[in-house]
Amino acid sequence: MTLVFTPRYAGYAAAVRASFERQGVLMAWGAELLEVAPGTVVLRLPFSDRVTQQQGFFHGGVVASLADSAGGYAAMTMLDEGLEIVSVEYKVNFLAPAVGDELIATGTLVRAGKRLLVSTAEVDVVRGGDMRPCALLQQTLAPSVPAGASSAS
Amino acid sequence: MTLVFTPRYAGYAAAVRASFERQGVLMAWGAELLEVAPGTVVLRLPFSDRVTQQQGFFHGGVVASLADSAGGYAAMTMLDEGLEIVSVEYKVNFLAPAVGDELIATGTLVRAGKRLLVSTAEVDVVRGGDMRPCALLQQTLAPSVPAGASSAS
Amino acid sequence: MTLVFTPRYAGYAAAVRASFERQGVLMAWGAELLEVAPGTVVLRLPFSDRVTQQQGFFHGGVVASLADSAGGYAAMTMLDEGLEIVSVEYKVNFLAPAVGDELIATGTLVRAGKRLLVSTAEVDVVRGGDMRPCALLQQTLAPSVPAGASSAS
Amino acid sequence: MTLVFTPRYAGYAAAVRASFERQGVLMAWGAELLEVAPGTVVLRLPFSDRVTQQQGFFHGGVVASLADSAGGYAAMTMLDEGLEIVSVEYKVNFLAPAVGDELIATGTLVRAGKRLLVSTAEVDVVRGGDMRPCALLQQTLAPSVPAGASSAS
Repeated sequence: MTLVFTPRYAGYAAAVRASFERQGVLMAWGAELLEVAPGTVVLRLPFSDRVTQQQGFFHGGVVASLADSAGGYAAMTMLDEGLEIVSVEYKVNFLAPAVGDELIATGTLVRAGKRLLVSTAEVDVVRGGDMRPCALLQQTLAPSVPAGASSAS
Repeated sequence: MTLVFTPRYAGYAAAVRASFERQGVLMAWGAELLEVAPGTVVLRLPFSDRVTQQQGFFHGGVVASLADSAGGYAAMTMLDEGLEIVSVEYKVNFLAPAVGDELIATGTLVRAGKRLLVSTAEVDVVRGGDMRPCALLQQTLAPSVPAGASSAS
Repeated sequence: MTLVFTPRYAGYAAAVRASFERQGVLMAWGAELLEVAPGTVVLRLPFSDRVTQQQGFFHGGVVASLADSAGGYAAMTMLDEGLEIVSVEYKVNFLAPAVGDELIATGTLVRAGKRLLVSTAEVDVVRGGDMRPCALLQQTLAPSVPAGASSAS
Repeated sequence: MTLVFTPRYAGYAAAVRASFERQGVLMAWGAELLEVAPGTVVLRLPFSDRVTQQQGFFHGGVVASLADSAGGYAAMTMLDEGLEIVSVEYKVNFLAPAVGDELIATGTLVRAGKRLLVSTAEVDVVRGGDMRPCALLQQTLAPSVPAGASSAS
């Protein structure tokens, strides 16, 4: 399916960026926000010893977290002003060992309901000049009022 | 279902512990291995600014990573000597905001096939003296030969 | 986790039964409602050539549908009067080939939020006097107003 | 990601068709195989009272079964001669109520490993001349030797 999304307010990209920069775990890993467009967000994560599993590759949980964030922010581009996004649930398949210099996660919104949104995300691992898919995620998200202990359910 | 598992060799718990300690991301977060028993593993993660999302709670990706590790190591207790475990895929539901002092993840093996294993994991968040479920995970795992770039598929 | 649920009205079991009997696909398969209790529902499905896959076993989609219905109705026991339940999404693992005379699906509610609920379901296949797990499901559900084309999102 | 798949033998499409026609549940529903190409399979399911849920729409379990079959057969196009495909697990999101005259499920292979394959599937519901997405599935599959009680694990 090919979908066209029209954001609800001009500052949607700035809101995504501000939220991204408050994520302690992504900041600790050195993640970067490469692109924010309506229904699409691209993130980058460089390799370091803070993101490895027992064999020295990118950890699956790190790969999934980056995918979850990319898909979540893709959904956030379609929220009303002042709302944050929270993940209700997600499912991730690991397609290949994440061995390389950096991860690129591309999140894509596929359904923007009022109470629930659905995104997918693909993660590619870059090694030398080569780029290959290493994970695929599908997730359910919900809008959340940011102040206080709001819940996904 | 209630299942009883008999490990294949005496050193299964030491193997889990050695693998756990080589996980860069879990070490960077300060995760601890509380319990290793046949088909069951319990992990602990203290709160810090290295594991937060944009509202200052435990990040969903961190919660899921801990659950993935607990379920994965629960499965590893039933592998033959010399094998590691890799996650093929997982699905996680977030049940409540992870606001608290520490996370406790309990992984439980539910199916030990030769080529594929299935585990579930529950994560509880501890706040003051109170403990409540915050995430539920279901995952597929595969045995992996640790040396070199072995793949889940 | 062990949870105790208190239904919102006396007729919750009758409402589940009435909804179950309007499900064309379950009726066509000959499914039965064995038990309705707060947060728990048990369904039974006898083998027939209407529910097989290419090797003559119970079809995975049938197994998953029964699990989805069991988990969904387990959630419905906790809704307010007049509400139906809809599945937002689910994930199912097949643990063993579903070869046998009947399936027993047990749905269990694990989280009852106002807008979203989470259930798990286990399906066992019965062959002769033997009963073994063949599928495990984890799902997200939402309350729905039954009249008209209400949506999960 | 855009992938190009080259089948292992000329009769791959005939093998998919033969397997499809042995699926009792799909035959009972009147499902049709519209297209078989390397890494892609399209199925069609007409509306009837054998496939409904309690509100008279297509049942979610039916929608998911069709998606599972489309994704599974998309994977089967890449197997060696003589092998069947089995679903290890899947996850499905329901995007909109499946109200309409027929379902079209398109399965797409995204990863063809030796022991595990990963597919996605989209289901669209057709109503009058209109076609809209109603479900999205992501699944793990494994090759299976068809004779006897082969297992996904």
